[in-house]
Amino acid sequence: MKKQKLHIVKIGGNIINDEEVLTSFLKDFSELKGYKILVHGGGNKATEIASKMGLKPKMINGRRITDAANLDIVTMVYAGLLNKKITAQLQQNNCNAMGLSGADANCILAHKRIVKDIDYGFAGDIDVVNSETINLFLQNNITPIFCAISHDKNGQLLNTNADTIASEIAVAMSGLYETELNYIFELKGVLESVEDKNSVIKYLNLEKYKQLISEGVISEGMLPKLHNCFNALEKGVQKVKIGDASLIKNKNELYTTLSI
Amino acid sequence: MKKQKLHIVKIGGNIINDEEVLTSFLKDFSELKGYKILVHGGGNKATEIASKMGLKPKMINGRRITDAANLDIVTMVYAGLLNKKITAQLQQNNCNAMGLSGADANCILAHKRIVKDIDYGFAGDIDVVNSETINLFLQNNITPIFCAISHDKNGQLLNTNADTIASEIAVAMSGLYETELNYIFELKGVLESVEDKNSVIKYLNLEKYKQLISEGVISEGMLPKLHNCFNALEKGVQKVKIGDASLIKNKNELYTTLSI
Repeated sequence: MKKQKLHIVKIGGNIINDEEVLTSFLKDFSELKGYKILVHGGGNKATEIASKMGLKPKMINGRRITDAANLDIVTMVYAGLLNKKITAQLQQNNCNAMGLSGADANCILAHKRIVKDIDYGFAGDIDVVNSETINLFLQNNITPIFCAISHDKNGQLLNTNADTIASEIAVAMSGLYETELNYIFELKGVLESVEDKNSVIKYLNLEKYKQLISEGVISEGMLPKLHNCFNALEKGVQKVKIGDASLIKNKNELYTTLSI
Repeated sequence: MKKQKLHIVKIGGNIINDEEVLTSFLKDFSELKGYKILVHGGGNKATEIASKMGLKPKMINGRRITDAANLDIVTMVYAGLLNKKITAQLQQNNCNAMGLSGADANCILAHKRIVKDIDYGFAGDIDVVNSETINLFLQNNITPIFCAISHDKNGQLLNTNADTIASEIAVAMSGLYETELNYIFELKGVLESVEDKNSVIKYLNLEKYKQLISEGVISEGMLPKLHNCFNALEKGVQKVKIGDASLIKNKNELYTTLSI
């Protein structure tokens, strides 16, 4: 039997930081036909709230460290403020959204990142995505909205990369659905030249990707994102696209389609 | 066919404000047999976070007003921090908890309180509890954990009294289950005399309740809580108990059982 299609869409700061852009995106997302899941990052809001509370982000070698105080902040902002605002807006659009962290119904099980050079604090690396429970929601006309928080089943919440959550969900669900993973970010896609915002590479396969890395064309910020994309494709995700918010409008817009 | 039993337990500040007390309560709640739902208030945490952010609670005639800034705070604290911490702890106890606001899967629909004498701001009065969706969760071994936030289906989140959420859920579910509503608070029950913490009225019916009001025995703080209790009983809830955390341990502890 042909599997049904499932869209997993991930949005980050460029959508979340601007209320108008977010509203417009959520309208488009609501109009996406068929089964779908939204995964959102936190944008600037956590840093903004932390600074209002007199907390400075803790950084080591340019990487953000999640200490206990910052975990409380991201739990408040990601799982509370942003997740519920997004959910309420989608409900207004008649999309039956339900906001979730990985702790809820044990959807995403992770472990605290093992300390090698850097102790990232309460950062989670994903072990299991509970596809059966997520499928129960989808089959009952519920659209899961995941924030970037998981748990370890020992009572500990964990700050978890939203790109990775999206790809791990896409991989886990690909046994049940024909999954398409969409990464929405600030650019129109993977660029041939950073200076030219329209130099979108329309099709990027693993071979070309490796070639572009060796040529130094892929910027450092793009590497983990693309690693997630190819990882998802290698583990059974049907299709991966990366581009700006126009990507999900299904018009003939510029974006990058990845393949292996 | 005899209906199955469903426990709806509401906890407030006296449980939530103390981490040890909360942990101990959540252990007892996890051990409660059968179908169950937890509803939690916010305790001191919202005021504490607001004050860290330099926000003062807005009060009119001694009543707290939820302006936009305070709505963001309660959304962060109730639906984010507290709801997810409680959920993660219950997951640790092998209770398959799922944290929810009223916006999630459209579980609790409300309207912004109509302005008469006082404009309460973004305070919600409940219209509909979506019993079908809540039942879907229960029937799939998921224990819903509700925070005190609802929505109006027009994109607006609303701060909503947790006692009322608990009683409205109990009423809505009483068509499907034999519902028992438990209010956990700082006292052992309704007291005959405020000075004697052990003067618990073990059984309180509507007639005696009215008599005690006329005698001035029922304190002002208890009135809305007891109103919710009797309202629930009148609308089909099977049993209502009110007492401290020992109530759900099902031992021979002191508490008040209400009846009509």
